[in-house]
Amino acid sequence: MTDLTPIIREKLDQAAGLLNEHRLDCWLTFVRETSQVYDPALNLILGFGLTWESALIVSRSGRKVAIVGRFDADNARRLGAYDEVIGYDQSIGDALRAQLAQINPSSIALNYSLSDSGADGLTFGMYARLTRLLAGTPYPAQFVSAEDIVRRLRERKSPRELERIRRAIDVTRQVYDELLAQPLVGMSERQVHALAGDIVARHGCGFAWERAGNPIVNAGPDSAIGHGMPGDLVIQPGQLVHFDMGLRCDGYCSDLQRMVYVRREGESEPPEEVRRAWQACWAALEAGRATLKPGALGWQVDAAARAELTRHGYPEYLHAFGHHIGQQAHDGGSVLGPQWDKYGDLPNKPIEAGSVFAIELGVMVAPYGYIGIEENVLVSEAGAEYLSAPQTQLWQQ
Amino acid sequence: MTDLTPIIREKLDQAAGLLNEHRLDCWLTFVRETSQVYDPALNLILGFGLTWESALIVSRSGRKVAIVGRFDADNARRLGAYDEVIGYDQSIGDALRAQLAQINPSSIALNYSLSDSGADGLTFGMYARLTRLLAGTPYPAQFVSAEDIVRRLRERKSPRELERIRRAIDVTRQVYDELLAQPLVGMSERQVHALAGDIVARHGCGFAWERAGNPIVNAGPDSAIGHGMPGDLVIQPGQLVHFDMGLRCDGYCSDLQRMVYVRREGESEPPEEVRRAWQACWAALEAGRATLKPGALGWQVDAAARAELTRHGYPEYLHAFGHHIGQQAHDGGSVLGPQWDKYGDLPNKPIEAGSVFAIELGVMVAPYGYIGIEENVLVSEAGAEYLSAPQTQLWQQ
Repeated sequence: MTDLTPIIREKLDQAAGLLNEHRLDCWLTFVRETSQVYDPALNLILGFGLTWESALIVSRSGRKVAIVGRFDADNARRLGAYDEVIGYDQSIGDALRAQLAQINPSSIALNYSLSDSGADGLTFGMYARLTRLLAGTPYPAQFVSAEDIVRRLRERKSPRELERIRRAIDVTRQVYDELLAQPLVGMSERQVHALAGDIVARHGCGFAWERAGNPIVNAGPDSAIGHGMPGDLVIQPGQLVHFDMGLRCDGYCSDLQRMVYVRREGESEPPEEVRRAWQACWAALEAGRATLKPGALGWQVDAAARAELTRHGYPEYLHAFGHHIGQQAHDGGSVLGPQWDKYGDLPNKPIEAGSVFAIELGVMVAPYGYIGIEENVLVSEAGAEYLSAPQTQLWQQ
Repeated sequence: MTDLTPIIREKLDQAAGLLNEHRLDCWLTFVRETSQVYDPALNLILGFGLTWESALIVSRSGRKVAIVGRFDADNARRLGAYDEVIGYDQSIGDALRAQLAQINPSSIALNYSLSDSGADGLTFGMYARLTRLLAGTPYPAQFVSAEDIVRRLRERKSPRELERIRRAIDVTRQVYDELLAQPLVGMSERQVHALAGDIVARHGCGFAWERAGNPIVNAGPDSAIGHGMPGDLVIQPGQLVHFDMGLRCDGYCSDLQRMVYVRREGESEPPEEVRRAWQACWAALEAGRATLKPGALGWQVDAAARAELTRHGYPEYLHAFGHHIGQQAHDGGSVLGPQWDKYGDLPNKPIEAGSVFAIELGVMVAPYGYIGIEENVLVSEAGAEYLSAPQTQLWQQ
């Protein structure tokens, strides 16, 4: 079982620091029955589920209070991360109003965001419910979005978080090594997918997204590119085979793509079109990585990679260049992507030191298949460094 | 891997029927990056995760449309449950407005609810985003809550859903049989919990809630009652040992409590106080079950059980008498509980035929420990029938 406890203690202290940095008085996470809807902030500040309406409050002074149903209170106390844990039976209202009165805030940050799914765990019903519980008080007028707090809490990885991400990446690399030691030719996508499951189970990790589409396995040009699930296509000589796999180890994720070219009889290397596309993809990835520094904006990084790829004569990729990884393979927060409507404000956020991104792009090379490359990098003042040996050469079988 | 596909097709048709029943024109589920926030309605109408802003629309005519990001579209098409699947690249806006224009609704039901966590998957940020995407159209003025649709969709189990729940209950019963064939005395709560994990893994099912607190194991009177995690207390002669376990098999859950009394040397049966409390608990459970019929209100059922328990001289239990089980052990929808603020409107909802409830209550019997009983029942016009042999006798070791 994953123990997030030490990370949660770190993150709660980090949250208090962020409230000061953003001059906000308190941060209120308001949830209920988390088996139905799980606010993604909970894995940063609690690490287990709750049943009844619950309020987790961090104030600028650093004080942390949890108000939870009676039968959840013991778990919250055992966590040892909250200064006070209050259990209630019939209504959270009195305790919640009393705690807010004690803080006497002029701003109350809530988990909602138009753009950032990782900072948007408050449901519409719970927002309405909170407003009703606080009717007649000054507090509803003080609600603001906690998106900057939650985003930065997620983006600025602690040493302990980094260690877990590095381990997930290491295990993923080992799983790829074992998987691709098999001769792929003649296997179906589905068979390769099943084999990957066996290998991952032996390593004691889980999958970072739904198993049905993890790893993605694309055999040749007719396989559906994207988040599709492996099918019955059989790997043939003369095909590019594309993999996209993310693992979760101790609660933290990797997200890496890998490529194999299956030679035809008599071939000693991949066809020239394939080699040319591979080089172009790598030039584009490196062009993006070169601009990936603290303070740069996400869209600028994406634009650098995108321009390099089109300069080589390939079409633009139809997704973002990069996303954070952490507790999720898509960890929310800023996006290294174009200013498309679906990304909202996320491409305009400045990049933070301590962030870990998956950077990725690809091109279709008919009639061989899809080339996709994806690596994981850590951002520091020195730039973006690869967290594992990147796949700079196209592997061959 | 769980295949929800056949159930999803049934549920989508059921949803169209519910729109007619409630005279609503369409139901819109609006989500994004479901690895961060997973709308619990998705497992009724899709069965896999989505990455970018997505709209799943069911209209009163029975037409179903999915608008999703390009790289998720293939999965939605393969499901075969939507009449049209539209993939987009930059913004969902145009396709969403066009679809709504085609339906020309006077009501658009959204997934929000003040009380029902199972019908409240729309986040506050996504509500705001939807309003912005539809600015300048008549549609935001037509938003209503989909809670009656989602609640009934969840509550009225289909034969296929019932079959899966029955299987989860059967496996749970077998796991309890194997677990309690062990001599418990001298084992710690934690050891029993670990052993349960091994047995469940052999049966190929998963746990219905977080493994850390599943099963709950309470050894004697000093163990934390509620949702606490098993600890280092060692089971002693003269103790009641209480178990609360739920499993998930093929996507559907059980939730059952079981009780063992560990005899002292020379004892041939449990102490009189324990036997008396056991009888009172059972009388109360049966009093509640007797009132559990279509059309009854949840609070009435709870009140019947509660009154019977106090009539026997025991204190009221500090929770609800019953909750739905289904895809979750706490499946949302109506609650068989008192009209406490934290339950909102849920105790006032009429009970539906085809519902499956976990019904439960308990009392502390110092100095022996906690007695908790919980059984799963199916509601039909004939009343509430047990879905597995109930534990009418306190087991002894």
